[in-house]
Amino acid sequence: MATDSTGSAPGAGPRTRRRADAERSIASIVEAALAAFRRDTDATMADIARTAGVGRVTLYSHFPSREDLLDEVMRRAIDDARVVLTALPAEGLPAREALAGVIRSCWQVLDRYRSLHAAATRVLGPERMRAHHDEPMAAVGALVDRGREDGSIRADLPRDWLLATVYSLLHAAASEVEAGRLPAGEAAAVLEATVDSVLTPVRSPAADSR
Amino acid sequence: MATDSTGSAPGAGPRTRRRADAERSIASIVEAALAAFRRDTDATMADIARTAGVGRVTLYSHFPSREDLLDEVMRRAIDDARVVLTALPAEGLPAREALAGVIRSCWQVLDRYRSLHAAATRVLGPERMRAHHDEPMAAVGALVDRGREDGSIRADLPRDWLLATVYSLLHAAASEVEAGRLPAGEAAAVLEATVDSVLTPVRSPAADSR
Repeated sequence: MATDSTGSAPGAGPRTRRRADAERSIASIVEAALAAFRRDTDATMADIARTAGVGRVTLYSHFPSREDLLDEVMRRAIDDARVVLTALPAEGLPAREALAGVIRSCWQVLDRYRSLHAAATRVLGPERMRAHHDEPMAAVGALVDRGREDGSIRADLPRDWLLATVYSLLHAAASEVEAGRLPAGEAAAVLEATVDSVLTPVRSPAADSR
Repeated sequence: MATDSTGSAPGAGPRTRRRADAERSIASIVEAALAAFRRDTDATMADIARTAGVGRVTLYSHFPSREDLLDEVMRRAIDDARVVLTALPAEGLPAREALAGVIRSCWQVLDRYRSLHAAATRVLGPERMRAHHDEPMAAVGALVDRGREDGSIRADLPRDWLLATVYSLLHAAASEVEAGRLPAGEAAAVLEATVDSVLTPVRSPAADSR
């Protein structure tokens, strides 16, 4: 294994080199965990150590519990979402169109991490999972606010509830695909149609009969 | 504590009496667990033993793990749903109206068990939680099928996905109330309006302009 000058600056002291080694093994553990959870929701710490090619002592020295590891893996998954969302041309688009793009991108990322979602929910619990999503949900929230102002998104239901429905429909789609009840190829379109129905302002019967 | 003739038939042997004692302590453990989870999602086995007034050895002899206990508690919660759903006058009502009644009743039961839901999801995982709900979801499924036949429920999205949205919106409402993001008093109406938007057949633009 190249533990030396490849990763550290030439002439770096043993301390810098030790830190670089630690960073490399953390990175390979997180990669291995992502791969392991992609294959199997119930992947154990031993599976992950094996996939990462590190000893269990090393694994536990960085992540004392499955909970700590899943917290870190969730952070990396959300980082992916940030990269995808930052690349979107949100400025200038109508709120509703921009929101459809955000939800489509969130789904792409989530679809990649379907089995991680089940594992992490079990270990971290629903509320900590939701907290991990604060940043992408803030992007959804800003567009929902804009859409409520311009009349393209319904204002008869609480704003936070609309966010909760978007969040839960996205994750329901991931669970349904994972469980084999929704074909993966249909999920994006089905999700888009459903979110559309939830967010569209309700036409009152009076307005219909005019 | 009355351990004797009160619970068993007169002249019952020691074995029958022992079984009656065990049933009584299981019942008090399950009651205590329900009360404990209603107060606190993170209730421990020690909290539950204390509330039930049984020793930890007794608790663990009936429920070797928190997982076993939560499985049993979930079964009792679903029993409550069965009682409520069986009392509904489903026959003769239009599908859509009957379904609204079923969802309202499911919400009443779920609302009572909000913090249990969070605790159980964490311990049992999303898929086992969903399996616990097979029976009430079958009642929802039968009405969704009837509504798709008579045209009162949309048929452009997969049936199983419509069930998944009903399931996840009900549980999202419970989580949101539990987290303090949705006022408890508004939840039933907000949920009904949302489910309505998801299930209503989408009017094509062509039909509108006719």
